[in-house]
Amino acid sequence: MPARAAAACAGATGPPAAVLGEFELIARHFTRAPRAGGPVRQGVGDDCALLDIGGRTLALTADLLVEGRHFAAGADPQALGHKALAVNLSDLAAAGAAPVAFLLSLALPRADDAWLASFARGLFALADAHRCELIGGDTTRAPRIAQHDGPITVGITALGEVPAAEALSRGGAREGDDLWVSGELGDAALALAQRSGEVTLAAGAAARVGERLDRPQPRVALGLALRGLASACIDVSDGLLGDLGHVVARSGVGAQVAWTEVPRSTALRAQPEALQRRCALAGGDDYELLFTVPAQWRAEVARAARGAGVPVTRIGRMIGARIEVVDGSGRAIDTSPLRPYDHFG
Amino acid sequence: MPARAAAACAGATGPPAAVLGEFELIARHFTRAPRAGGPVRQGVGDDCALLDIGGRTLALTADLLVEGRHFAAGADPQALGHKALAVNLSDLAAAGAAPVAFLLSLALPRADDAWLASFARGLFALADAHRCELIGGDTTRAPRIAQHDGPITVGITALGEVPAAEALSRGGAREGDDLWVSGELGDAALALAQRSGEVTLAAGAAARVGERLDRPQPRVALGLALRGLASACIDVSDGLLGDLGHVVARSGVGAQVAWTEVPRSTALRAQPEALQRRCALAGGDDYELLFTVPAQWRAEVARAARGAGVPVTRIGRMIGARIEVVDGSGRAIDTSPLRPYDHFG
Repeated sequence: MPARAAAACAGATGPPAAVLGEFELIARHFTRAPRAGGPVRQGVGDDCALLDIGGRTLALTADLLVEGRHFAAGADPQALGHKALAVNLSDLAAAGAAPVAFLLSLALPRADDAWLASFARGLFALADAHRCELIGGDTTRAPRIAQHDGPITVGITALGEVPAAEALSRGGAREGDDLWVSGELGDAALALAQRSGEVTLAAGAAARVGERLDRPQPRVALGLALRGLASACIDVSDGLLGDLGHVVARSGVGAQVAWTEVPRSTALRAQPEALQRRCALAGGDDYELLFTVPAQWRAEVARAARGAGVPVTRIGRMIGARIEVVDGSGRAIDTSPLRPYDHFG
Repeated sequence: MPARAAAACAGATGPPAAVLGEFELIARHFTRAPRAGGPVRQGVGDDCALLDIGGRTLALTADLLVEGRHFAAGADPQALGHKALAVNLSDLAAAGAAPVAFLLSLALPRADDAWLASFARGLFALADAHRCELIGGDTTRAPRIAQHDGPITVGITALGEVPAAEALSRGGAREGDDLWVSGELGDAALALAQRSGEVTLAAGAAARVGERLDRPQPRVALGLALRGLASACIDVSDGLLGDLGHVVARSGVGAQVAWTEVPRSTALRAQPEALQRRCALAGGDDYELLFTVPAQWRAEVARAARGAGVPVTRIGRMIGARIEVVDGSGRAIDTSPLRPYDHFG
């Protein structure tokens, strides 16, 4: 369940339990151990659940996108169709699963034919690219609230397949493992800052970072290439520190991140240092893969990334018992002002 | 996708395409044939999708319940937790599938510990009774709209298993088959009429019909017992005529329903005839199974129902090319005033 949730221990100090957010309190009501001898290999608490069926293992994930919370009123329906599926495929990628099928639930204030056609176009373009078939779902009218339209709500449940022994999870990082991330971090958060008027960007840069926010590319091929290689993996949806916090909490090992190595776009590097840190360390909606690999397999990681056509960067290593971000001279950076994204914050 | 949708041909006249609702127009944007050679045995358009995985067949269904649409503001959270899962298990039952697991997505205006505890109690009581495990999902805060709380939204995707050759669907009814229904119809609609002040009931009757509305019992055991016996099956969520319309449309055969045989509770039978018809023929939220069986297997149906502990009633037969409801002397009843439940109506 806690996909895209607040991190319990994103700061550099204090035990995870001391900073539990509202989200974790909710999750506690729904977290129970899988039934012994049942088909559930991995339940609530990772990017995907794993279910053993007929000698195969299914990976399952669900995400709910709500207007006014995950996207703005009037958002481009084609981009929304893309993104609603992309965030789920990103969870499959983080489990090393190959997409198979998905279900779509929609609450809409009205049946607008042009809106639906556009939404379906964005949705199916991405679905077809990953051979992931729509197999069912539900549609209902969003209720009116105080003479206003109720929020557009898009719920997707995606299913993938992964050999059980090769499934990636948050819990396998070991001390000494390298810490890697795909692509670049922080552009989606920069796009939000630009749209809110906090930051001014040239038109070209605004378009590029806006694309990262609106049409994230799930790293499915990289997830498949990391099977049997990565010791832990998660997709960066709540910000680097937040999601690294999940890996640290589940793996029982800390991490040291070298800030100078954190990959950032030219547009983000042109911003003040404080904004760069906020966007790249605590911004959400990146949908890159953050993963750990034993240090002797650097060449294999490079080969996997080349094969998947996705750049990857080594940004640190798993060490100690907490998360620490260090600058170019190895001094710890104070990350306490960087609050992780909290869906209930 | 069109689980719990408006029926295309619930009235006694006119071809299905002529009375397409807004819902069908939406569904058209998302209905495509399964990819040839792929794992999808049955896609959008039945109570469940069927997916072939490792020699086994999964049944999958999703339902979205939205405050102000499917339940009232201030609804008892324990009943809501029960019902959100029950409507999905009812879809599995209609496919003859045994429940395995489910994912839960919640949008809530706030994290209220007592509300969550009560919701979880209702949810898990039903889940445990059917050995159906919660394996994942998502939680987010509902956005505020014009100073009002956004709607509580509950999305559940449920998975079951069914031998492919024995899966029940809407499409297999043949001319001459008997038409059966489980339990009694119309009490949930009567409860709605009582709560809206349209009808006055004695306290005991109000409690009994209210229970049918708030805590429907999915007919999972009956669905399993009907494997290999029923030629078609659907759960009655949008009203008898609406859901029979789906069977008729998919099976390419009509139906004659004997109104006097339609099972109704004592409380409903005490109401005026017009209200009885509206509740039992077009009321929603019954979650009984409506199914067809070759006429030579009446004894087998009775045995299956006894084994499942659920009463069943033979209410008509599959005949002709349209739906007809006849009274005790065989005369057609005008059902045109009985509009089926339409989530976009």
